Amino acid sequence: MNSKNNAEKTCPIARSIDFIGDAWNLLILRDANAGLTRFEQFRKSLNIAPTILTKRLLTLTQEGVLETKRYSEHPPRDEYVLTTAGRDFLPILFLIGDWGRKHRGKEGVVRFLDDETGTEIKPLVLDENTGAKIGTRAIRIVQPTEIKED
Amino acid sequence: MNSKNNAEKTCPIARSIDFIGDAWNLLILRDANAGLTRFEQFRKSLNIAPTILTKRLLTLTQEGVLETKRYSEHPPRDEYVLTTAGRDFLPILFLIGDWGRKHRGKEGVVRFLDDETGTEIKPLVLDENTGAKIGTRAIRIVQPTEIKED
Repeated sequence: MNSKNNAEKTCPIARSIDFIGDAWNLLILRDANAGLTRFEQFRKSLNIAPTILTKRLLTLTQEGVLETKRYSEHPPRDEYVLTTAGRDFLPILFLIGDWGRKHRGKEGVVRFLDDETGTEIKPLVLDENTGAKIGTRAIRIVQPTEIKED
Repeated sequence: MNSKNNAEKTCPIARSIDFIGDAWNLLILRDANAGLTRFEQFRKSLNIAPTILTKRLLTLTQEGVLETKRYSEHPPRDEYVLTTAGRDFLPILFLIGDWGRKHRGKEGVVRFLDDETGTEIKPLVLDENTGAKIGTRAIRIVQPTEIKED
């Protein structure tokens, strides 16, 4: 699959898919959203080969979801922190987790609670405009050529 | 990355990642959620090599997000329809699309409107229990060993 082709596509899902469609990238993003920032932390958490981790961190940085921040000058060491785009990915990860809990078994999986209330976080996706749950109402797909901006 | 390892992991994201972490799988699921069911429809939509498409459709069927339904006996032909698990994936695709629109440019991309109101679908992820937007409140991660079921 060619990155360039996807970026030029009219579908906003296809435009995001080159980095999302990689299991390691998603797991690194998950760990970054859980607060991990350093190479060694990611490596231990994921039990990932250093060469693969290096490559994925570079991709995620180039894709603008992580950015490097120097935390030591001698020796020079960078950590990886989420950008706004990376933090915006958190709800997607929650939804994937929720899907997994529903369709891949909930026995022995980690749970995410609201820290204050102690209740389980149950992601619900609504359409901000109609207030309806996504998937419960008919959708109209509009191609870019049909759109008139005002 | 080993499928078996991920399925045994305690993280519900990791359990789902083997099929999500593949760009073609996501695009096929997108097309299935847009109403495509037949091999030729997917092939044309994605401009994908038949051997790759065959392999991905098999994976998605084995993963339980698509199921085959015979639509012709002579010659024998199956189509691929979404299961409940596959339909439950729709909000995730909307969120990925929304992320792409925000962080990969909205020039020339397809738009999704509510068919009745004609307003743009703007996915919003809330926690059903607290009503708060996901990511705006502190989260507590509970390991399986800490969980007491009542």
